[in-house]
Amino acid sequence: MKKKLPVLIVNGPNLNMLGVREQAIYGKSTLRDLENLCKKTAKELGLAVDCLQSNLEGELVNWIQGARKTHSAIIINAGGYSHTSVAIHDALILSELPVFEVHISNIYAREAFRHTSLLSRAAKGVLCGFGIQGYSLALQAVANLLQTTTSIKRKR
Amino acid sequence: MKKKLPVLIVNGPNLNMLGVREQAIYGKSTLRDLENLCKKTAKELGLAVDCLQSNLEGELVNWIQGARKTHSAIIINAGGYSHTSVAIHDALILSELPVFEVHISNIYAREAFRHTSLLSRAAKGVLCGFGIQGYSLALQAVANLLQTTTSIKRKR
Amino acid sequence: MKKKLPVLIVNGPNLNMLGVREQAIYGKSTLRDLENLCKKTAKELGLAVDCLQSNLEGELVNWIQGARKTHSAIIINAGGYSHTSVAIHDALILSELPVFEVHISNIYAREAFRHTSLLSRAAKGVLCGFGIQGYSLALQAVANLLQTTTSIKRKR
Amino acid sequence: MKKKLPVLIVNGPNLNMLGVREQAIYGKSTLRDLENLCKKTAKELGLAVDCLQSNLEGELVNWIQGARKTHSAIIINAGGYSHTSVAIHDALILSELPVFEVHISNIYAREAFRHTSLLSRAAKGVLCGFGIQGYSLALQAVANLLQTTTSIKRKR
Amino acid sequence: MKKKLPVLIVNGPNLNMLGVREQAIYGKSTLRDLENLCKKTAKELGLAVDCLQSNLEGELVNWIQGARKTHSAIIINAGGYSHTSVAIHDALILSELPVFEVHISNIYAREAFRHTSLLSRAAKGVLCGFGIQGYSLALQAVANLLQTTTSIKRKR
Amino acid sequence: MKKKLPVLIVNGPNLNMLGVREQAIYGKSTLRDLENLCKKTAKELGLAVDCLQSNLEGELVNWIQGARKTHSAIIINAGGYSHTSVAIHDALILSELPVFEVHISNIYAREAFRHTSLLSRAAKGVLCGFGIQGYSLALQAVANLLQTTTSIKRKR
Amino acid sequence: MKKKLPVLIVNGPNLNMLGVREQAIYGKSTLRDLENLCKKTAKELGLAVDCLQSNLEGELVNWIQGARKTHSAIIINAGGYSHTSVAIHDALILSELPVFEVHISNIYAREAFRHTSLLSRAAKGVLCGFGIQGYSLALQAVANLLQTTTSIKRKR
Amino acid sequence: MKKKLPVLIVNGPNLNMLGVREQAIYGKSTLRDLENLCKKTAKELGLAVDCLQSNLEGELVNWIQGARKTHSAIIINAGGYSHTSVAIHDALILSELPVFEVHISNIYAREAFRHTSLLSRAAKGVLCGFGIQGYSLALQAVANLLQTTTSIKRKR
Amino acid sequence: MKKKLPVLIVNGPNLNMLGVREQAIYGKSTLRDLENLCKKTAKELGLAVDCLQSNLEGELVNWIQGARKTHSAIIINAGGYSHTSVAIHDALILSELPVFEVHISNIYAREAFRHTSLLSRAAKGVLCGFGIQGYSLALQAVANLLQTTTSIKRKR
Amino acid sequence: MKKKLPVLIVNGPNLNMLGVREQAIYGKSTLRDLENLCKKTAKELGLAVDCLQSNLEGELVNWIQGARKTHSAIIINAGGYSHTSVAIHDALILSELPVFEVHISNIYAREAFRHTSLLSRAAKGVLCGFGIQGYSLALQAVANLLQTTTSIKRKR
Amino acid sequence: MKKKLPVLIVNGPNLNMLGVREQAIYGKSTLRDLENLCKKTAKELGLAVDCLQSNLEGELVNWIQGARKTHSAIIINAGGYSHTSVAIHDALILSELPVFEVHISNIYAREAFRHTSLLSRAAKGVLCGFGIQGYSLALQAVANLLQTTTSIKRKR
Amino acid sequence: MKKKLPVLIVNGPNLNMLGVREQAIYGKSTLRDLENLCKKTAKELGLAVDCLQSNLEGELVNWIQGARKTHSAIIINAGGYSHTSVAIHDALILSELPVFEVHISNIYAREAFRHTSLLSRAAKGVLCGFGIQGYSLALQAVANLLQTTTSIKRKR
Repeated sequence: MKKKLPVLIVNGPNLNMLGVREQAIYGKSTLRDLENLCKKTAKELGLAVDCLQSNLEGELVNWIQGARKTHSAIIINAGGYSHTSVAIHDALILSELPVFEVHISNIYAREAFRHTSLLSRAAKGVLCGFGIQGYSLALQAVANLLQTTTSIKRKR
Repeated sequence: MKKKLPVLIVNGPNLNMLGVREQAIYGKSTLRDLENLCKKTAKELGLAVDCLQSNLEGELVNWIQGARKTHSAIIINAGGYSHTSVAIHDALILSELPVFEVHISNIYAREAFRHTSLLSRAAKGVLCGFGIQGYSLALQAVANLLQTTTSIKRKR
Repeated sequence: MKKKLPVLIVNGPNLNMLGVREQAIYGKSTLRDLENLCKKTAKELGLAVDCLQSNLEGELVNWIQGARKTHSAIIINAGGYSHTSVAIHDALILSELPVFEVHISNIYAREAFRHTSLLSRAAKGVLCGFGIQGYSLALQAVANLLQTTTSIKRKR
Repeated sequence: MKKKLPVLIVNGPNLNMLGVREQAIYGKSTLRDLENLCKKTAKELGLAVDCLQSNLEGELVNWIQGARKTHSAIIINAGGYSHTSVAIHDALILSELPVFEVHISNIYAREAFRHTSLLSRAAKGVLCGFGIQGYSLALQAVANLLQTTTSIKRKR
Repeated sequence: MKKKLPVLIVNGPNLNMLGVREQAIYGKSTLRDLENLCKKTAKELGLAVDCLQSNLEGELVNWIQGARKTHSAIIINAGGYSHTSVAIHDALILSELPVFEVHISNIYAREAFRHTSLLSRAAKGVLCGFGIQGYSLALQAVANLLQTTTSIKRKR
Repeated sequence: MKKKLPVLIVNGPNLNMLGVREQAIYGKSTLRDLENLCKKTAKELGLAVDCLQSNLEGELVNWIQGARKTHSAIIINAGGYSHTSVAIHDALILSELPVFEVHISNIYAREAFRHTSLLSRAAKGVLCGFGIQGYSLALQAVANLLQTTTSIKRKR
Repeated sequence: MKKKLPVLIVNGPNLNMLGVREQAIYGKSTLRDLENLCKKTAKELGLAVDCLQSNLEGELVNWIQGARKTHSAIIINAGGYSHTSVAIHDALILSELPVFEVHISNIYAREAFRHTSLLSRAAKGVLCGFGIQGYSLALQAVANLLQTTTSIKRKR
Repeated sequence: MKKKLPVLIVNGPNLNMLGVREQAIYGKSTLRDLENLCKKTAKELGLAVDCLQSNLEGELVNWIQGARKTHSAIIINAGGYSHTSVAIHDALILSELPVFEVHISNIYAREAFRHTSLLSRAAKGVLCGFGIQGYSLALQAVANLLQTTTSIKRKR
Repeated sequence: MKKKLPVLIVNGPNLNMLGVREQAIYGKSTLRDLENLCKKTAKELGLAVDCLQSNLEGELVNWIQGARKTHSAIIINAGGYSHTSVAIHDALILSELPVFEVHISNIYAREAFRHTSLLSRAAKGVLCGFGIQGYSLALQAVANLLQTTTSIKRKR
Repeated sequence: MKKKLPVLIVNGPNLNMLGVREQAIYGKSTLRDLENLCKKTAKELGLAVDCLQSNLEGELVNWIQGARKTHSAIIINAGGYSHTSVAIHDALILSELPVFEVHISNIYAREAFRHTSLLSRAAKGVLCGFGIQGYSLALQAVANLLQTTTSIKRKR
Repeated sequence: MKKKLPVLIVNGPNLNMLGVREQAIYGKSTLRDLENLCKKTAKELGLAVDCLQSNLEGELVNWIQGARKTHSAIIINAGGYSHTSVAIHDALILSELPVFEVHISNIYAREAFRHTSLLSRAAKGVLCGFGIQGYSLALQAVANLLQTTTSIKRKR
Repeated sequence: MKKKLPVLIVNGPNLNMLGVREQAIYGKSTLRDLENLCKKTAKELGLAVDCLQSNLEGELVNWIQGARKTHSAIIINAGGYSHTSVAIHDALILSELPVFEVHISNIYAREAFRHTSLLSRAAKGVLCGFGIQGYSLALQAVANLLQTTTSIKRKR
């Protein structure tokens, strides 16, 4: 049954430096904190999560492609690749999974080159500016969605 | 104490037609459903909410100005005014309150004239594409923020 | 039966000043003349009309929303709001009525900021430069359309 | 006396394929239907019409130049040439006749390259999205205009 | 005699929050201070003034239309509507009064979306960055203009 | 049976000067060579071809319209008209035939005004930079397509 | 010997209406006057001229292609086609003749869509705003060039 | 004491032709009239002024640099250099003086190339369209500013 | 002898998902099918091929660099990297090999961000919209080119 | 009598280096050759000329202002200042003299930053690409114009 | 002590092909020559260097992140990634090290897509066009900077 | 022998204010310090230098023209003129000398209007952000270049 598949949480370039990188913008939590928060939240919601991080665009593409068969949803923060990567966009589309895009900072209130995310076109929902809590909120949306989808299917 | 002030939830033009308006995009819930969801979620989070809706840009400005002294945060979905209203932007800034911007649909995956929200510059966080559940998620962010802020202040 | 519902004729900002405002561009007829012409033409075509004018964007939105259940078509000249109002655009879409957009002057032969109407995307037909006679022509199009629609339905 | 000169109705490229070409957009009527409608309407209005169609830009220029001495007004649908033809624009200007521009479909609600008509600058009025009925409406505008002009002259 | 008519001073959205709103940019004076300054300056110049403020675009349009018969000049600070409002622009034109546009801060040295005022096209003079004193300077320009105009007329 | 209809090969302005025109870019073959190559290739593929060339945009439109009933596919090199002709674009669409666009030189590596072909939107495939051999390749694609289409139909 | 070949003078759309068309811009001389001036000037300069005019873009292309073998230079005023015609541009290049572009009015001081001539890239010299005298000046430049070229060749 | 230093009034290219140059736009007063007005107004305000004019961009830069030590404020109308001069912009910044930019005509209502002044970024206030009276108004702003500044300093 | 070196066929991101990915756009064939087709076609043409695929931009760069000494031509479909990769562009240039760019779908008829390929500047020929058959056509072009090149060299 | 005043020939920056500067573009003639050619041509045409050259923008402005009273026409090649100088543009306008703009090379066939001359708006005629002979042609246009103007005046 | 940490020299895509790649642009030196030059210069300046090169964007990100704790400055030539990589930009920022950007060729004098480096925003200094000597110059700047910084710190 | 000619160091507008002007950006050194540094460095490198500074664009043009015969290289910091001056660009080209462009601050990390230098097209190398040390680095590049050039010539 689909809902039992874990949620894939993909973090892109420089997110391994969370807690170190510009704290005024990104906060003090580390990537480990972020991933622990995801696991804890997922547990509360009855979901499982897999957390991956890479600085290589192509590795992100590989993981997203792989999720197609093994996961039920994707939460992605592609960092600097969000603004230019057609390859990640295409991988998200072909995964045929619900995608939620997260950014820790409010990208629309920063430099102009961060205002447009090419990935948003491929996402179901987008949230930014909520710090690492944004991942929890996205997980709730996933939980809500999978539940809804299942119950709708049941009715049919 | 600041955290006891209610959260102002402001809905802009055409959101009074939720449930009627293009269901494929906006879903079946009505504005009343949306506001009840907000009240229920707020209660669970220990928050109070005031819900207002108007089709007039200036009335939205009036309410946001008024919130400065009477509310602790603003959750706003300014609908069609999001894309052009400098007046609402300025009112949000002068409120000096934390602002969360919500859109029911994923505006970045729709017509080009919806891709830019002038209000995002004035917001702490932005989320879109989560349906009416987006308001619940925003309320959680408010709860989280106020708690944090309070505890930080206490420490001082 | 749908065709018996009246046609809503909505005039936007500054059209209450017709006959006063720049006569070389807008002609000598007043808003009253315009509305009388509409009523007279409607009568000849077997249609009823309701004529409304406001300088407030949000009031135009209110009226268009209201027409959804009470009118069979909308003829709109949103004046200066035509070029920027996403809110009116969205209201026209959700009305699910046939919309005809009218401008008294030829907006494409004037200042650059008048060359684009955001509302045209939501209209079935657009006409401009025909003076107040444009409203008569639009009413004929409505008459033609309703008749056609009805007869097509009858055939089914 | 000027009003007795016929109205020139000029149709441009691909309009000879009406009724065949994309019926969902252009309707089922053929060019012949369109021209018969023009003749019938003109008769009712006390006007005469000449109907010409060509796929060659230069031929359209030739006909418009020729109308200067022999016709009282021009109704033009220059099809695909509308968006780029300075030559037709210049011919319309030098004809010194009132020009009404017609498009069968609502060009402002289609592909971006159809949103701008270079000819609208040279027209007195523009209408689009009214199907072949648009030509009838334009003829009424011509009738109205010629009559007005005449009576104004008489008063002098 | 025209010069005896009062000058209309129109303030737009968020100017009711002067003194509260971002003091570093807008200064400490309140709207009341501003209006008192206007009245005091007007008196010294032998002029009368009427001061109005609204957050609603359409209300500003209404007042400007009304001034046509009852006032001799308009001083306007349309706040956030300055950058997008065709409706206010058109109302200023049809008032047929001399218009002076004022901004408290230097809009050309702020965010890009404040660099263009659509209203400047309809104004006789524009000034910005002079704080609330800008209104006094504009009133002097009005006094100077009305005097000049009158004396010119007398000579004729 | 559809596949027996010949393929229309349409060459636009200046292609009659092949072999004469800038040999460094277009090669030494003449239009006759090009057409002979097409005929030879077509024969090998079991196809028939008709080759037409004109410097007149409208004549190209005429031929494409005509192909609708008499040909099974169109291979077009519209030369300089490729970059601006809405009329040819529309004719290709209404032909309801599979279209392959060919350019002898690599237009994307030349002057900026050659980088965009308006016709590509209406084509099934586009190829450029293959010299006159490009027409052979396009014919193979046609052969492949017609065969496929036929066999698919047969299966049904 | 090359210099004995006549100069081709090509006039494009609407230039057959010279003297009729907007006299304030284009002057009172007719196309015949223009051509007579060219013949007279050419005679004085020891040159022969052939004068052609057409409203069809493709016919202009045909003539320019033909000039390659039969003429020594081209003076062209392509009227409205100057601003968009890649086809004429390409024909001028492949003629391998010296080209001088002439415009009767100063196109750089008129509407924005006349500010750019695509043909100027293919011309040796460009002149505009000299009325029909511009053709005489261009002929002098041709005379000068041919003489120079010849003498340079002789020296070799 | 700073306030006793004179105000530098700098006029740029073509302002030496005031009274001669396009009177409909710039009025009948000459540069001498303008400078006398400045001196008279300054005297009334208890200020001293130095008036300089040059057509050379670099000379304007020289004077502005020099004012750093010898003047208390700058009033500048850099004429045609306003729209492009980074050098004058930089000189104004490094002067560390309050700068007021003046234009005699309303530059925002003229040709597009006059709509942007690069100098406005470096100015405290900008005013245009007030004729030569604009310099008087700017002087008042200077008087007001110096007084304020002084009194504020005194309070400290 | 150069022609004996194999042709390098490079496929970029997400092409490993062919047959899975959006079948309506990319067809049912898998990457293996594609590569088999290439091998089969190459064999018929007397060519050898090496087929490589990667989701990593840098790996594509590595392979292209390596081909310089070991291959005779490159056929590349860089998928999503086509639109932004200067690095792949530069690698293609420095390979000094003939490059043919292939896209399975017609990129010019899809989303705007796919309309421009940065790689086309570095290619000899470009083809798109021919499905996986496009690779066969490109191989024929290679075969043709190598043969020609060889025979030309022989003649020398 | 106006026609007896000399013609002012103004050359801008780097034209003093003619004959030295990039001969492939500008030819071998020096500034002295150019000025001698002007004097010789003027003599033949019954005109007098004054030739000035400067590398300083402001000096060009000074000379053009001065010509207002002392010359009958201006021929200007403002070199690199042509593309940006509002100051020279304004000086040309206020001179109220007929202005002819000359460029030695064809600026429209060179780098993009040379394609637009701000001065062309202020000129009666523009010519470029004719080498130093361009000045002779411009002088003929002046001779023609002055004669015409005079004779027209005589008729009156 | 900070100054003893080595300088990281990072070279991006295709720089491993130096000496092979387009020698007219990049010169004859190889990457090894470049690195030897760096080592030799560093030694003379009392600095140590580590030299890394990769064609993978993510690997460059990894190295830059790592340098944060282990190096005292970064000299980077990110080749083709310079123009688009937000990820490298962000890594440079979070390294909190002084960064100098080097390009072997003058990127501002080449194709337009090389004119903008996103990385320059994150650099202290930028130099290009100095060949491989540019790295020596950058090392001198590092030496200068570290010395200065140290002495300033000592003073504190 | 060419290398014995001195290097011309040209500083443009506002660089005479170094040390005074915005120290946070430009540092504390004065123009004299800068010139002394240049002289000292030149001496060490066996070069001679001439240092010139002017705020007048035309004077910079004059000096650059003059350097053609008297200097072996140019180091230029044209300050604010860098971004707009075609005249200086052209002078640099015609000098036929190697040019190095220097900026004290990193212009690519400042306001948008400083991001593009028109002069970079005419330079061999560009460096910015190195403070006054940038001139030393440029001098080393000159030394290196002249030596290389000489030795290459010797080899020939």
